[in-house]
Amino acid sequence: MSSYQKLEDHFREIANFEHASGILDWDNAAMMPSGSADVRAAATASLSVHIHKLSTDSRIPDWVGEAKGEQLDEWQVANVREIERGFTMNAAIPADLVEALSTAASNGEQAWRSMREKNNWQDFKPYLDEIFKLSREQGQALGDASGKSPYDALISIYQQGIETKDIDPIFTDLKAFLPDVVQAVVERQNMAGNLVTIPRGISIEKQRALGLATMETLGFDFNRGRLDVSHHPFCGGAAGDVRLTTRYDEDSFLDSLQGVIHETGHALYEQNRPQAYLGQPVSEAMGMAMHESQSLFMEMQLGRGAEFIAYLAPLIRQQLAPAASPDDKRWSSETLYAISTHVEPGLIRVHADECTYPAHVILRYEMEQQLIAGSMSVADIPDAWDASMQALLGLSTTGDYKDGCMQDVHWPSAGVGYFPTYTLGAIAAAQMKAALLRAAPDIDTQIARGDLSTTMNWLRDNIWSQGSLYGMQELMTNATGKALDVSDFKSHLKARYLGE
Amino acid sequence: MSSYQKLEDHFREIANFEHASGILDWDNAAMMPSGSADVRAAATASLSVHIHKLSTDSRIPDWVGEAKGEQLDEWQVANVREIERGFTMNAAIPADLVEALSTAASNGEQAWRSMREKNNWQDFKPYLDEIFKLSREQGQALGDASGKSPYDALISIYQQGIETKDIDPIFTDLKAFLPDVVQAVVERQNMAGNLVTIPRGISIEKQRALGLATMETLGFDFNRGRLDVSHHPFCGGAAGDVRLTTRYDEDSFLDSLQGVIHETGHALYEQNRPQAYLGQPVSEAMGMAMHESQSLFMEMQLGRGAEFIAYLAPLIRQQLAPAASPDDKRWSSETLYAISTHVEPGLIRVHADECTYPAHVILRYEMEQQLIAGSMSVADIPDAWDASMQALLGLSTTGDYKDGCMQDVHWPSAGVGYFPTYTLGAIAAAQMKAALLRAAPDIDTQIARGDLSTTMNWLRDNIWSQGSLYGMQELMTNATGKALDVSDFKSHLKARYLGE
Repeated sequence: MSSYQKLEDHFREIANFEHASGILDWDNAAMMPSGSADVRAAATASLSVHIHKLSTDSRIPDWVGEAKGEQLDEWQVANVREIERGFTMNAAIPADLVEALSTAASNGEQAWRSMREKNNWQDFKPYLDEIFKLSREQGQALGDASGKSPYDALISIYQQGIETKDIDPIFTDLKAFLPDVVQAVVERQNMAGNLVTIPRGISIEKQRALGLATMETLGFDFNRGRLDVSHHPFCGGAAGDVRLTTRYDEDSFLDSLQGVIHETGHALYEQNRPQAYLGQPVSEAMGMAMHESQSLFMEMQLGRGAEFIAYLAPLIRQQLAPAASPDDKRWSSETLYAISTHVEPGLIRVHADECTYPAHVILRYEMEQQLIAGSMSVADIPDAWDASMQALLGLSTTGDYKDGCMQDVHWPSAGVGYFPTYTLGAIAAAQMKAALLRAAPDIDTQIARGDLSTTMNWLRDNIWSQGSLYGMQELMTNATGKALDVSDFKSHLKARYLGE
Repeated sequence: MSSYQKLEDHFREIANFEHASGILDWDNAAMMPSGSADVRAAATASLSVHIHKLSTDSRIPDWVGEAKGEQLDEWQVANVREIERGFTMNAAIPADLVEALSTAASNGEQAWRSMREKNNWQDFKPYLDEIFKLSREQGQALGDASGKSPYDALISIYQQGIETKDIDPIFTDLKAFLPDVVQAVVERQNMAGNLVTIPRGISIEKQRALGLATMETLGFDFNRGRLDVSHHPFCGGAAGDVRLTTRYDEDSFLDSLQGVIHETGHALYEQNRPQAYLGQPVSEAMGMAMHESQSLFMEMQLGRGAEFIAYLAPLIRQQLAPAASPDDKRWSSETLYAISTHVEPGLIRVHADECTYPAHVILRYEMEQQLIAGSMSVADIPDAWDASMQALLGLSTTGDYKDGCMQDVHWPSAGVGYFPTYTLGAIAAAQMKAALLRAAPDIDTQIARGDLSTTMNWLRDNIWSQGSLYGMQELMTNATGKALDVSDFKSHLKARYLGE
């Protein structure tokens, strides 16, 4: 057996345990009775330890070295490259730091769940102290192994191929661009008058049927996936068995629908990964920014676009209010579009619209850099948060930790370096939509009549089927003709929100 | 760390992977989209291999040897005893036989699913040939390691502490006793006239609510368990997270209800295992016959008993037909009792009543002995099956493989030696009920008013909380004053079905 083959076998084995872990995590959020949390935590910890052990198997670098001398095609070469990169990162972090991070994340997340509700910053702070201390060590260790700064190394856990030197100019540009846009959009909205309120009291059963029908329209493969309910919607499960969740509120069906469309974007990427290499690192999505580009393509570029809403509105009315008249303004595409594109600065990132979302990300990105560099301490976070929110969105968070610096699960669960991927994904999605429009100038007409074949084929050919064959910037360049660039995103916002 | 402590840590680790495996199996049957079968099979195979590897770790016998010299309490002593027994059995079977059995079982079960429907014995037979060949090797290897005959060794996989020398007299007794009983019961039924038919068209939603309410009445802990739907009902999941399934037919709600009561018996055993030793072999149920005694205690002794039905009937009516009059004969306890205790010889084991069920088991038990001994070949099975069915129940299965020798999944999935546990469990359940009656002479009055506390406390104290502290016969003797004995079962049948 060739050393390359040994690598494939070994990583197929790892993928099998990751399958188990992914399904258990989904079950934990969507199915598990609450009293079973302790036995489940023990089971998933054993799985994690085992996966880490397999991932740092000392035979891997030997096989990699030998495989490089073997006859390999371009996918196999890329697979070896990804394996080597992953091994280097995994091996860079000492076992006791892995364990300390895992414990701190578990404790931090638990503390966050109970203390956020009580707005209890004082008792929460020590958990963040520990997290940032360990994240600094993690960044240092990863950076030493990869020649990156600690914060760049942390970013690379979630998205390889992009660093602060690439992100800084993009975010600086947006910081200058967005405030005027937001102000202009809000004024425009105010001039247009009040929104028609969204119909309320829509049963969960009807909403679920609408969600399923929309997933079907988008091409979700129910033969290899499901839709369920969880407190925090996500796309999880395993390659070949994608588990997507949403939550329902009878008084705001659009939140659930848009959530389903968003998660379906993640799911389509997962379901259309290169099947011949399933279980191998090269088949995996090209990082979390690229993953987010797919969910935001579906939610923002497609799902909140006037064309798809024009197609969807009558179907929504028929499904949710079959007795309503086609002229009922509450169900018109104009109303649904207005609600879907409403802009309003707010405190909470996850509720933010397309125009104000980047401000939430930039705030966290700038703070993370300082926290990892050591130029800001955890004790400074609340004041710094308030100052940034004032500067970026004109809102105060003084004393409001719950809706301020305690709103996200990322930091307490040791996800430092993750936040930038959201906005990088939004920018990439706009860039892809622009490229698609160049390739198919009538794409909006196609979408307006519910014909998504060109759109989905473009994404399948250019993104989903590519796995990790190319690095992020090469993938973007192959797909759109250029590396990640903020201009299409800015044009998109101006076109959609200001009619420019 | 003491060697005993090392054993506990090691088996806690094994239990964690078994937790993962149990939840994945439940998911497979109750949740998984059908197209994910291939990736799931790969994942569960990796888990099985890993569990087998941990279970045959060569350090175990050393730790066992050292632990025996350490200061241990009676639970720890029993834990070491169970660990040693399990290790001896696991180590007795060569790795290539484990793999061959696993492959044959997987292929056999798949063949069974497709060929049973088509009544296709000819193409199915080679799979059974392979299974029985490997089962003989398995029995031989296990027998060599434990000083048992090959078939006794196979039985011990499912129930330790009982062998053919104990089972033969019991089954011989039943073979002589049952035909006359069945004939008398059928005549008695015929004299009593036609059954009132069961109400049909009961929605699944209502049936599910009734099932959940009944589980609640029986003391199922929903904080550590769930009820879902699968094609074949089962009680699975993991210790501390029990997953129970049923199936619904709008035209026969009693089947689902009685299935739920049966599976709840298994679940109560699992949920009430000794918590301090969860994850250790000593906390496990004392074999499959004892497990079946709990499901049959709930279904047969309690659930189909006149007293519990008297309590349940008005609740069933209120839940399923709230508009029905209390005098509506279709919902009376007399009707529900008559249907629940209807006796009728039939071809299918899983549909058999309490009086004819042992015949199905005895037939299989006698054939398994000959098949393992080599005095019968797989080709002889259909004729032998027909002859036995004629002799035991007066029914012909000539040419009907589907409802004859191809009806069960046990043989194609390599479960040779399992069948006797069903009837041993039924006998044990009757013996426990008789002991409970001696301990609480008014127990039937308590049950009739829906007060199950004495019943459940007795089972908890005498069976569930005992785990594997004692062997099967010691457990039975402690609980009922004697080893397994068929007399209480016979008395129970005569009392319930013949009014004697």
